[in-house]
Amino acid sequence: MDYKKIITRVFNEVKAGENQGEVSGYIPELANMNPEMFGVYLTSLNHLEVGMGDCHEKFSIQSIAKVFSLTLAYRILGEKIWERLGVEPSGTAFNSLVQLETDKGIPRNPFINAGALVICDILISQLKNPKTEFLAFLRETTGNKELSYSEKIATAEKSVGYRNVALCNFIKSFGNIENNPEAVTDFYFHLCSIEMNCEELSKAFLFLANGGKTMHNNQPVVNTSQAKRINAIMQTCGFYDESGEFTFKVGLPGKSGIGGGIIAIHPGKYSIGVWSPRLNEKGNSHRGMKFLELLTTETKLSIF
Amino acid sequence: MDYKKIITRVFNEVKAGENQGEVSGYIPELANMNPEMFGVYLTSLNHLEVGMGDCHEKFSIQSIAKVFSLTLAYRILGEKIWERLGVEPSGTAFNSLVQLETDKGIPRNPFINAGALVICDILISQLKNPKTEFLAFLRETTGNKELSYSEKIATAEKSVGYRNVALCNFIKSFGNIENNPEAVTDFYFHLCSIEMNCEELSKAFLFLANGGKTMHNNQPVVNTSQAKRINAIMQTCGFYDESGEFTFKVGLPGKSGIGGGIIAIHPGKYSIGVWSPRLNEKGNSHRGMKFLELLTTETKLSIF
Amino acid sequence: MDYKKIITRVFNEVKAGENQGEVSGYIPELANMNPEMFGVYLTSLNHLEVGMGDCHEKFSIQSIAKVFSLTLAYRILGEKIWERLGVEPSGTAFNSLVQLETDKGIPRNPFINAGALVICDILISQLKNPKTEFLAFLRETTGNKELSYSEKIATAEKSVGYRNVALCNFIKSFGNIENNPEAVTDFYFHLCSIEMNCEELSKAFLFLANGGKTMHNNQPVVNTSQAKRINAIMQTCGFYDESGEFTFKVGLPGKSGIGGGIIAIHPGKYSIGVWSPRLNEKGNSHRGMKFLELLTTETKLSIF
Amino acid sequence: MDYKKIITRVFNEVKAGENQGEVSGYIPELANMNPEMFGVYLTSLNHLEVGMGDCHEKFSIQSIAKVFSLTLAYRILGEKIWERLGVEPSGTAFNSLVQLETDKGIPRNPFINAGALVICDILISQLKNPKTEFLAFLRETTGNKELSYSEKIATAEKSVGYRNVALCNFIKSFGNIENNPEAVTDFYFHLCSIEMNCEELSKAFLFLANGGKTMHNNQPVVNTSQAKRINAIMQTCGFYDESGEFTFKVGLPGKSGIGGGIIAIHPGKYSIGVWSPRLNEKGNSHRGMKFLELLTTETKLSIF
Repeated sequence: MDYKKIITRVFNEVKAGENQGEVSGYIPELANMNPEMFGVYLTSLNHLEVGMGDCHEKFSIQSIAKVFSLTLAYRILGEKIWERLGVEPSGTAFNSLVQLETDKGIPRNPFINAGALVICDILISQLKNPKTEFLAFLRETTGNKELSYSEKIATAEKSVGYRNVALCNFIKSFGNIENNPEAVTDFYFHLCSIEMNCEELSKAFLFLANGGKTMHNNQPVVNTSQAKRINAIMQTCGFYDESGEFTFKVGLPGKSGIGGGIIAIHPGKYSIGVWSPRLNEKGNSHRGMKFLELLTTETKLSIF
Repeated sequence: MDYKKIITRVFNEVKAGENQGEVSGYIPELANMNPEMFGVYLTSLNHLEVGMGDCHEKFSIQSIAKVFSLTLAYRILGEKIWERLGVEPSGTAFNSLVQLETDKGIPRNPFINAGALVICDILISQLKNPKTEFLAFLRETTGNKELSYSEKIATAEKSVGYRNVALCNFIKSFGNIENNPEAVTDFYFHLCSIEMNCEELSKAFLFLANGGKTMHNNQPVVNTSQAKRINAIMQTCGFYDESGEFTFKVGLPGKSGIGGGIIAIHPGKYSIGVWSPRLNEKGNSHRGMKFLELLTTETKLSIF
Repeated sequence: MDYKKIITRVFNEVKAGENQGEVSGYIPELANMNPEMFGVYLTSLNHLEVGMGDCHEKFSIQSIAKVFSLTLAYRILGEKIWERLGVEPSGTAFNSLVQLETDKGIPRNPFINAGALVICDILISQLKNPKTEFLAFLRETTGNKELSYSEKIATAEKSVGYRNVALCNFIKSFGNIENNPEAVTDFYFHLCSIEMNCEELSKAFLFLANGGKTMHNNQPVVNTSQAKRINAIMQTCGFYDESGEFTFKVGLPGKSGIGGGIIAIHPGKYSIGVWSPRLNEKGNSHRGMKFLELLTTETKLSIF
Repeated sequence: MDYKKIITRVFNEVKAGENQGEVSGYIPELANMNPEMFGVYLTSLNHLEVGMGDCHEKFSIQSIAKVFSLTLAYRILGEKIWERLGVEPSGTAFNSLVQLETDKGIPRNPFINAGALVICDILISQLKNPKTEFLAFLRETTGNKELSYSEKIATAEKSVGYRNVALCNFIKSFGNIENNPEAVTDFYFHLCSIEMNCEELSKAFLFLANGGKTMHNNQPVVNTSQAKRINAIMQTCGFYDESGEFTFKVGLPGKSGIGGGIIAIHPGKYSIGVWSPRLNEKGNSHRGMKFLELLTTETKLSIF
């Protein structure tokens, strides 16, 4: 399989096509992104690396970071975390409160905001210095010592984050948040503020293609069963209310962020980071979705 | 991989464990099933066949038949069918009307009852003698000339099928049913009445592990892309409100029926039919779920 | 209080104003109504009668008939009817199925379609010839021997009544419909087909202003407590999702129909029928609402 | 009408009956109330006053205070307040977030928590010292200089008030809260902390029976139209998800609080305060509801 050739062709095809959708405008740091940015980076288990376009430009990975927070909580507590949240797709928007009312404060999965807040709460309860230790975990997993929070973005998130504050207090009212809602949302806003480029993203997630072990130092981040299960949750819940569509069209586990980033993983083969800021109406990168759909169509390789 | 050994061990382990849950009681034909029945049958692409327990006892495959009706409609009309229904998990019970009200009569996916009714409507519009032609398709695909509807079950379904009649008329009120609701529900009730045993089930679904082609005569039932996409929909929507859990624990595309049957597919490898009538609270076979979870754990093989 | 003078002035003011909204278009018999029709008729307990405009033109009273069916069922069974439906405003549209799913088939009140269907079912169980006996009750209560169903409208209702068929089968699936759904919806469609003019409407409802007794022959239709309670339900549930607004602006119990008719009752004083076909976005007569708001503002008389 | 005799008889009858339900336990100040407390106090426009039982014991009026905050906001801004909230019954529990999601942050009415928070926000925007000025308004309206907040209760409310904080931030996320959510909820928690006894309650609300004017100094609190409209909203929305039931059984506008208090108003006649801490499952005083139902049944006087 000549990935490089296929990626080049598909990248150019998508770049030549219309760049539809809108850049997220809820904070200036996202609104001001150049909507024409488009990068992809694939890293395979057999050491192939292919980067195209703006693959070395940093961007706010936003919700993609929820996979890392889940990973750390899962590593620390194991299956016990599922006492406090589920693994089912929500069937509603990423920030909906409706389902929580029905389900008495138990979020459907760790990738909707409600679930990510519960994961943050778990980490705060488990870690002495949650923000510092989480960053340390991220740097260790990725082998990238320069990853950091963007205080500017975290502050901007907080200034408009009323719905997340609402979600956190709502879950607290059901007893499923242990810590102070302000501490939980502060951690959450920092989580969302992490910046990476496509190459970093691709490499950071390679452990999920590799049975849970990092490639750079062959250390287990999580065990094989946990890695499979994280992939499974990405498959059913990684794209908000478009998870079914992504599974249908792309056929790989993945996770999107409102900054226009997407990570997709082919277990046993590769991980690929894609970035393009314009979002479709479901909040996922228009070009990112398009690129990945064509990629798995052309390679004829998906998990199905 | 010694599938036979692993299947034997797992089968015996599950059989030795507690047989929890309740047999579906809404029609006598289901209520009267022997709750201790338990069978599995695996057919692999490299001609391995392993059967255990009551794998040659016929049972009502119920909702599993929705995969066949989807397949036929997809084969006839291609991607056009998605104008009338989606591929997203519903986040609600299999027979919920709530989502339809929000989504103006467009069912979330072809495996909730609402979506299966729309697929029936499509087939009625496309076929001259829908019931006869559907059966012919099923026989051809499976290479099994004896498959048939159970008129007794279809009649029983109809006698208590008020919610399905409600669903069909509700969708019709939005304009997304073309034919007479009575004709649509009649076809639907017949669809649900089909009886198979685990071996038949396993063999009938082998085309989805085989890129869309039958094994017995190497004919394409659907094309490769369609086969992958049917698997993808099974992955996200095959187990009602427990689809995420099944993906998480088993890691294979599959579909369950209220008669206690489950089909699961490992693309490129095998298909496996499992049957045990006692259902968990989400309406899926207790032993079937358990068996498949242990199977993919022991074989360390899932799609993730 | 010079009702005649006030009614004349208010009628002319509303007639001079813009005639907003749309005539209901779901069946030709409604769609073809002259949108400029506008009539009012007040009958007071002290024998005042004031009619204006098109007050002698017949129109389809539609949902207003639900007050009569409730009255008859209440008279026959007393408080026992509340075992099968409630008296709470629904907070949703008149034909919503959502609430029924939550409340397990118990309609919120007798004026949403679901509740009216349950009332029809009750009457079918209680009466030998429901349609004939209901008409006899209506003629006796109103002293008007010419009231009748419009078979043309009933047939038209049936031809597009899929959502009502859905509602009826849905309730049946919860066990809260005793009879055949077809019989229940047939009765329901006939109920909706009754035609009256404003004068007839006003006189037919005078018993609710008169403690439950007819004016023409001083016979109790229901007892005083029941009459008060029917008024109370009209107050909280008579205008679908605009009941609060009507209570707020008009301050009288009342009931609207999609044909553009409204009945309002001032207990101890009068009943008034109003008709104008153009509906606001909540499905209530634009001019009817406006007229009644101005009437109670000018007379400074409401129940509050 | 010998109100005193009837009240005495009904009071004794209810007191002799079983005292069902549970005292609200969410803060110690409510949980520790004596569940056997039971008082009523009626004040009529023709200077009759009848008090029974524990009518001079202070209790936390809780949500009943929402009528006062609505009154003040309505007096200041007039009909303009309805741009930010509605007058429709909600059909859901008092603290539900579901409806807000559908209605984009516009609360259904001023008596559900969401609506009361919006009213608090309006008052904060309109007043220099909201808490002080609100108290001054309350003292002036009631002629009672001793009314005050209970800082103890306000603090307790705040310590468990996560759902109200959630509601406030949720509405803010839709842009329908102008001020800092912390300031809004602080005002709200103080509002809920006001303590009165039945006599004070009865006298404080007499202006709503008197066309908007106080009895003690004949000053307009609001104009007559506004007074009627406040009564109308109490009628349709005063008892959360039991408003229809209260209208049906009692037939008077009223408002309940989770402290077990109820105020009911017969426009043109009287206002009556009732208190008994045990609540039915809808959160309204069991004995209070019972007493008022019997009172209007025995007097044969309601607004219908």
